[in-house]
This record gives sequence, structure tokens and C-alpha cells, in this order.
Amino acid sequence: MFHQQLEKYSRLIENHLAQLSLGEGSLKESMNYSLQAGGKRIRPVLALASAKALGGEIENILDPVCALDLIHTYSLIHDDLPSMDNDDYRRGKLANHKVFGDGQAILAGDALLTYAFELLSKEIPGVAPERQLRVIREVAQAAGPSGMVGGQVRDLEAENKRLNLEELEAVHRMKTGAMLVVSARLGAILVNGSEEDIQALTKYAQAIGLAFQIKDDLLDIEGDSETLGKLAQSDLRQNKSTYPTLLGVEGAKIELKAKIQEAYKAIEPLGGRGNFLRSLAEYIAQRSH
Amino acid sequence: MFHQQLEKYSRLIENHLAQLSLGEGSLKESMNYSLQAGGKRIRPVLALASAKALGGEIENILDPVCALDLIHTYSLIHDDLPSMDNDDYRRGKLANHKVFGDGQAILAGDALLTYAFELLSKEIPGVAPERQLRVIREVAQAAGPSGMVGGQVRDLEAENKRLNLEELEAVHRMKTGAMLVVSARLGAILVNGSEEDIQALTKYAQAIGLAFQIKDDLLDIEGDSETLGKLAQSDLRQNKSTYPTLLGVEGAKIELKAKIQEAYKAIEPLGGRGNFLRSLAEYIAQRSH
Repeated sequence: MFHQQLEKYSRLIENHLAQLSLGEGSLKESMNYSLQAGGKRIRPVLALASAKALGGEIENILDPVCALDLIHTYSLIHDDLPSMDNDDYRRGKLANHKVFGDGQAILAGDALLTYAFELLSKEIPGVAPERQLRVIREVAQAAGPSGMVGGQVRDLEAENKRLNLEELEAVHRMKTGAMLVVSARLGAILVNGSEEDIQALTKYAQAIGLAFQIKDDLLDIEGDSETLGKLAQSDLRQNKSTYPTLLGVEGAKIELKAKIQEAYKAIEPLGGRGNFLRSLAEYIAQRSH
Repeated sequence: MFHQQLEKYSRLIENHLAQLSLGEGSLKESMNYSLQAGGKRIRPVLALASAKALGGEIENILDPVCALDLIHTYSLIHDDLPSMDNDDYRRGKLANHKVFGDGQAILAGDALLTYAFELLSKEIPGVAPERQLRVIREVAQAAGPSGMVGGQVRDLEAENKRLNLEELEAVHRMKTGAMLVVSARLGAILVNGSEEDIQALTKYAQAIGLAFQIKDDLLDIEGDSETLGKLAQSDLRQNKSTYPTLLGVEGAKIELKAKIQEAYKAIEPLGGRGNFLRSLAEYIAQRSH
């Protein structure tokens, strides 16, 4: 049931992404290169699942829903640049700047971010313009200086610095949490969700956002463990505060479970309508990559 | 009269820019560094003047109006990066990346662009949400892959290539023209301008956009002439197609006059309400920097 539904959402998203008008020539090529690099599409899936949980129609909100993945993709392209994280590979493929050059990669990111706001502001039959404006405002806040970009700056500044758990959570809430939360909210707001429903989905997304990050950190270590043999080396090599370095592997696993319980609890008010979201939380906690 | 009014618009814009909430810490500092670097604020002035020409209130549209300059500023920061135009100076000050580093400069640009859309989507008392959504859509189009960013890519690709006049105009229409046009349209749309008024201001802005670029090219040569002595060297050094290299200095001056006449003609329907805009066109043609 869950995997069939996830498959259905993914197909809707992939089809919609494939038919976007991304300009022309080399710019279009570089935008598409990263957009089609095979991400998990967690943000749009979360938006569609939230809309569906509230009984909404999802076919007509695919433009704003897909905009979420354009914003995510732009952030990855800029992140990978030599002056940022300096990663040559992303999802097993060469990073955008390794294929198109740094200048084009910067512009491809800029174009994806800007085009996302075009998608967010297209007229949607049956959705009140006030709701759409609210969504744009919230997405801009989540992606901007007090959200994702702000978290990115803090992350750059935190390199070679030991963070405590509170500081680490603050970085993640900004860097990845804010966009996950706004993804759930976008789905809820666009299908006329009540403030109570929006609030429940917000708490759910906050919890799975941190769960996602803890799982990421754990997967990173498990991957490294096979080659490097022990945790301390990975920690040393990365010089970065993570959940396992702060809490230990077992502590991080306990924290992960607690976050998933928090997510379940947040959507209790939705009853059976929250089934897919519950499975999605579990999927995040158990994924192997 | 004109200069007093221009001064008044500038003051409104500067005051509003100075009180924006640009996040915190080093990100805020780097965003502010470029935002306060003393540009001409042509885009917000054009928006305010267009709104005013149609008899609109301008005090309550300062958020979206200032967003135009945030977008302009972000594009300059990214333009100056080593992997793009590689300029160490901008407006007589060190470029953003020379002060804050390339990574921070990329993020400051990203943050300014994103925050611009937050400003564009803030509720405005007395403005219909439909109109605001239309403005966001048009700004995103003007700034995105088929507008400013697209023009930037073409510009990068045109280096060391000879463009003809038509190709040169196409680059300018995308790279700078689209944002100037949408600035005038934003002012008109937000104060409930009729489609005829919006159309008149569009033609006006298209004409002054190209006039602005021709003047820029001429100023560049006149500046260089003093130091280098002749046009051919400047042309050679830049390896770039410009109006003077394509039309000759005299030909470019004639083209500039023609564009200004085009601008005058476009706003004839506005009668006396177009006085400031007429003077603004003249000001653009006669400025010395």
C-alpha cells in the first residue's frame, strides 16, 4: 500500500518535472542535469501526502509542489561548488559545476530558484490567491536568510567547531528542517487545511526533518565504518559535529526513534487519514541510503 | 522639480532598504554590504514613478518596490565572482566576494534573491491578492531563465564572439531590459493601472532600457578614451560587442536619441502625468556615470 502510493506520487512528480519549460540552450541543459539526477523527492512527496491527508485534490497543485524540489536542487548545486562544500560528485554523478563549469552552475542554481517562484505564483483554479500568497511568503521565509540559506551560512561557520546538541539542532532546523516543514504546510494550505491541521502537519514535519538528519548521519558512519573501521576516524576526517559524534551511535539511534514517535503523535488527530504519513516517517527511519 | 522628486523617491527607497530584516550575523553583513553600496536605484525609482504617474499611493508598495533592487544587487554579486565576470571592484568598493569570500558571496546573493520574493509576497492593504500574484509571476519571469539569468548565460557565451545588432539587443533585452520593464509594470499593476497604461509603461521601459545600455557603452568608451586614447583599443581589450563597436560612436549616439524619442512617444497617452518619466528618460541619456 505505502510503496504503491509512494510510487504514484513519484510518477506524478517526475512527469511534471519533465515537462517544465526551463528556458533554452545550455542553461536548460544544466538545470535539467541536476533536476533529473534522481533525488528522493522527499519535499514534493511530503507536500502531496499532506494535501491528500486533508482530502485535497493534488493534480492541480503540482506546479507549487514541484517548485519545492527546484529550490532543493538549486541549493545542492550551490552547495557543491568549490567555494562551498567542494564536492565533485552528487548522487553518484559528477556535480553540476564539474560538467558545466562554476559560472554556469551558479547561474543554473539562480535560474532554478527564480523559476521556482514562477511556478509558485502561477494561477491555480480553485485556490484562493490569498492562500497562494501565504504559501509563497512561507516558502521564501523557509528558503531565505532565516531558513535554508541562513542555516547554510551557520554550517560553513561551524566547520572545525564543536557544536552542542542545541546548536546542532538549530543548524538543521534552518538548513533542512525549514524547507521540509514548509513542504507539508504548502500541501495543507493549498487544499484549504484548517489551522489545526496545518499545525499538526508542522509538528510532524519538524520531527521527521530531524529524524531524516539523524538517519543521514548514521548512514554516513555506517558507510564509513565499512571502509575506515571505526567511528572516531570518520569524525576526525569530517571535523564536523553530528548526532552520532555528540550522542554516540546508540544514543543517536534512540534519538531517531524518539523523533519518529513524536511524528506519529503529531498526526494522531488525523486518524486513518495519516496512514501514509506514518509509513513515510517509518520509511525515513529505515531507509538504507 | 525632477531632481527634487528623484531625491524624494531615493530617500523613500533608502530608508526602506535600511530597515529591512536581513537575518543576522555575517550573512546580514554581507547582504547589507552590497545593498548599501550606493547604486542608482533605477529599478525602484522606475516602479515608484510609474505608480505615481497613474495616481497611485506609493507608501504602501515599498516592500515589492525595494525587492527589485534586492534582485538587482544579487545579480551583481554573482556577476562579479571569479567564475563569472571576475571583477574585484564594484562602484568603487571591493566586490562582495573580495570582502566576504566566494562562498559567502554566493550565499548573500541567494539570500537577497529569496528575500526579495518574501518582500513581494507580503500582504499589502488595499492591493488585491490577484494583482500581487501577477506581479510575483512577472518578476520571476523577468529575473529567471527566459529573462535576466538567461541573458547572463548568453552574455557569458557571447564572449569573444561578434554579435550583430539584433543579437546584441536580444541579450540586453533579457539581461537588463526585462527587469526594467517589470519594474515599471510592477508599479502600474500594484496601483490598479489599466492594461493600456501598463502597455504604455512597458514600451517606455523597453526604450529606456536600451537607451540606458547604449549610454553605458558610450560612457565606458569615453572613460577609456581619456586613458587609452582611442576606441579601437577599448574594443580590442574588452573583446565584446557593444553599440559603439557595432554602430560607431556617432551611430550609437543617434540610436540613443532615437530610443529616448521612442520613450517619449510611448507615454504620450499619459499627458502631464508622464512629466517625471520624460525627465527620467532624459536623465538616463545625459548622465555622466
